[in-house]
Amino acid sequence: MGKKLTSRAQDYSQWYNEIVQGADLAENSGVRGCMVIKPYGYAIWEKMQAELDRMFKMTGHENAYFPIFIPKSYLSKEAAHVEGFAKECAVVTHYRLKNSEDGKSVVVDPDAKLEEELIVRPTSETIIWDTYRKWIQSYRDLPILVNQWANVVRWEMRTRLFLRTAEFLWQEGHTAHATRKEAIGETEQMINIYAQFSENFMAMPVVVGTKSQNERFAGAEETYTIEALMQDGKALQAGTSHFLGQNFAKAFDVKFATKEGKQEYVWATSWGVSTRLMGALIMTHSDDNGLVLPPKLAPFQVVIVPIYKGDEQLAKVSKTANKLKNSLEERGVSVKFDNRDTHKPGWKFAEYELKGVPVRIALGMRDLENGTVEIARRDTLEKEICSVMGIEDKVISTLDQIQDNLFEKASRFRNNRSYYVDTKNQFIKKINEGGFVYAHWDGTAETENLIKKETKATIRCIPIDSKNETGECLFSGKPSEKRVLFAKNY
Amino acid sequence: MGKKLTSRAQDYSQWYNEIVQGADLAENSGVRGCMVIKPYGYAIWEKMQAELDRMFKMTGHENAYFPIFIPKSYLSKEAAHVEGFAKECAVVTHYRLKNSEDGKSVVVDPDAKLEEELIVRPTSETIIWDTYRKWIQSYRDLPILVNQWANVVRWEMRTRLFLRTAEFLWQEGHTAHATRKEAIGETEQMINIYAQFSENFMAMPVVVGTKSQNERFAGAEETYTIEALMQDGKALQAGTSHFLGQNFAKAFDVKFATKEGKQEYVWATSWGVSTRLMGALIMTHSDDNGLVLPPKLAPFQVVIVPIYKGDEQLAKVSKTANKLKNSLEERGVSVKFDNRDTHKPGWKFAEYELKGVPVRIALGMRDLENGTVEIARRDTLEKEICSVMGIEDKVISTLDQIQDNLFEKASRFRNNRSYYVDTKNQFIKKINEGGFVYAHWDGTAETENLIKKETKATIRCIPIDSKNETGECLFSGKPSEKRVLFAKNY
Repeated sequence: MGKKLTSRAQDYSQWYNEIVQGADLAENSGVRGCMVIKPYGYAIWEKMQAELDRMFKMTGHENAYFPIFIPKSYLSKEAAHVEGFAKECAVVTHYRLKNSEDGKSVVVDPDAKLEEELIVRPTSETIIWDTYRKWIQSYRDLPILVNQWANVVRWEMRTRLFLRTAEFLWQEGHTAHATRKEAIGETEQMINIYAQFSENFMAMPVVVGTKSQNERFAGAEETYTIEALMQDGKALQAGTSHFLGQNFAKAFDVKFATKEGKQEYVWATSWGVSTRLMGALIMTHSDDNGLVLPPKLAPFQVVIVPIYKGDEQLAKVSKTANKLKNSLEERGVSVKFDNRDTHKPGWKFAEYELKGVPVRIALGMRDLENGTVEIARRDTLEKEICSVMGIEDKVISTLDQIQDNLFEKASRFRNNRSYYVDTKNQFIKKINEGGFVYAHWDGTAETENLIKKETKATIRCIPIDSKNETGECLFSGKPSEKRVLFAKNY
Repeated sequence: MGKKLTSRAQDYSQWYNEIVQGADLAENSGVRGCMVIKPYGYAIWEKMQAELDRMFKMTGHENAYFPIFIPKSYLSKEAAHVEGFAKECAVVTHYRLKNSEDGKSVVVDPDAKLEEELIVRPTSETIIWDTYRKWIQSYRDLPILVNQWANVVRWEMRTRLFLRTAEFLWQEGHTAHATRKEAIGETEQMINIYAQFSENFMAMPVVVGTKSQNERFAGAEETYTIEALMQDGKALQAGTSHFLGQNFAKAFDVKFATKEGKQEYVWATSWGVSTRLMGALIMTHSDDNGLVLPPKLAPFQVVIVPIYKGDEQLAKVSKTANKLKNSLEERGVSVKFDNRDTHKPGWKFAEYELKGVPVRIALGMRDLENGTVEIARRDTLEKEICSVMGIEDKVISTLDQIQDNLFEKASRFRNNRSYYVDTKNQFIKKINEGGFVYAHWDGTAETENLIKKETKATIRCIPIDSKNETGECLFSGKPSEKRVLFAKNY
């Protein structure tokens, strides 16, 4: 504590790592690519989970749980899925250990080889649609609106805490519908829920759009995405929702009897967000002093730090502090009173600044005499001496202001770094500077690949609200009907 | 639906399986030993989780998340742990698949062999204590009170839904303390929380005690357990809390500086309950008509079934039903109004009976005319016509009565099947009939093993409240100071 962070300007990636570790959010484990999510980081994830879960249930979804293992043969049943999906997976081949001959360690028992290898789920479409076959006979069994909170594993070679880890936590919704239209409606509903969550809770503005064919989920007919802009000018894909057509129903033979008695394949969607959102949250709001948290997702919104000398003063300050804590909690504000005598106030100030606690209240003997407290806002770092009378209203309105201010600030940043470009030179310049670049594209995968190769930019999405506007593809000169969103990305 | 269940008397094990599947709680998956927890079953588990999580947090615990994989070498660091712990584990040996030569399937890529195999966690002491080494330097860092909600895998050969599955869901608490006394206090606090949860929420009476050395957790100095009696007379271990001494701190070199500046090893506990509690819940209360749920854990406590002919009647009934639903929900009661027109009332009655919904309200045209409803209790199967005026109070008091009645009924059953026996013949007779058998034992592992071999009974626990009472071991004739609890077990 007290050691200054590397600044964003100095080394953005180092700054990120120092915040993740300094704010006690997560750390690397002894297992390559797998992270430990520490209590303070996990508490933020729990807040995210609780709100998302509430939104899912409000829209009629239920939770369930499917096996962590997927038989290897399932993966190849949906051709596009296995082709397009990364084959970097954790493969279970044996089911027993035994003592080594010298008795000092354990070894894999060669007699305990599995007949068919099991894959630790990288995503669960295959095992779930294998299950849905048993659940669905008739239109009466539809829709199925199921979500799962789970861990998944993708064997990434280059990992970064929260952003890209071999194991991560996520939710995956898997729904089954009687009609194409209903399934598309569900896909759109869920991307909108993600967008609302991002903007209203994470205070993170997003662009909603669909993916180009190249970037679509393996096995999907359409992938919707929300894309956010990070402070280094790179885009981060924060959530996706897939319309899977009848692909998985066909691969796993899931049919239903319609009201008219015909047999038809079921329509599918899947949608998910992960602990990657933690990375997005950190990079959207934090500054060179550390983490900055939107009040709606902070493990505690207010910290009270007592300023005192000796037990007698602490007792006096604590009395007022506890009263304040209780009255704030009655109003629905979460409060930590840090009365540890093992650390000095200055150390605590630095710690809670690094941890992004939205509001800090300092309370000393002089405050008791004057009937005041000192309130500090994490977002603006402004301090103010306030009367303790009516302080609850002041704190609540400050929390609201911080939530709004963070969203506005992030939106301003995003808008200032969004460019409409019409020449190839401009395109390359803006991509290299970093930001969202809206440009015409001819709609072909060839050109998309060429642009990626030449500039490292990818099509983040075809924005939902992109207006029809004739133009020319910057790279091929062929006609284009609308602008799409390009950026370098995480 | 409508098909009668196998009765308990006829085939207890078949009865259990039929309830689990018929009530839509869980089913077997395409992966050997791994279950799918269906939405209705998962909703019960979520209720359990929410309450346990609340109790953990009330006592100062925080959640965190540790990797699913454990490097093989970690397992052998704590000698008793690897010796005593089942070696049936899922072993990850490779990290990549590739297309087969014929292009029709995927095969394990032999070039992607891990240098060190990874074990899918069967429990997390080793990976967590490897992490705690980094978290703990001084007494200021203690205690650490961390819990994890996670999936774990133990490669069981004979599996049964919820009771014994290869993958299961659980929570595992792992705490670190500066003193032996504090760690023992934590171990005892947590077993008491489990006992309170079992009795107050699951309505399942338990015996709290410690395990004999034979039955202790591998690596523990003391294991506390809660033991419940199932309707077939077998015991079920429903939760355990372990005092781990300094064993894991020594194995992973976790020391702290005391206030006096000395270096000492940290004291540890771990404690867990799992989806096995679902099996315990089902077997404690259910009857030959299906599942019976205590109101505090029911996904919905009340179901309203409309009785009507045609849309006009349905509209009228729905108006009253929705009003009732809202007014019950305002009072904190969870209600489902099943207005599906795809199923008849009789079918719905049977379904909700099988699913154990505590209170069913039927509402038809005659009820509207008379200002009445029909209330049916799932536990006693009693029906009653009640005035719709003040029905909310009636429903709430009925739910309370059901919760109490289930606990009393289960307690009566348990007490009637608890025996204090003083001869070997009596012991064998009662063990074979099924039940809790309290008997003297000489305290040796030899005798314990002999008894298990001769009678299939194990020592479930040495009850905390077992009075000192001199006696003779029924099998060895050697002196004994107190009775211990024997039973056959799950």
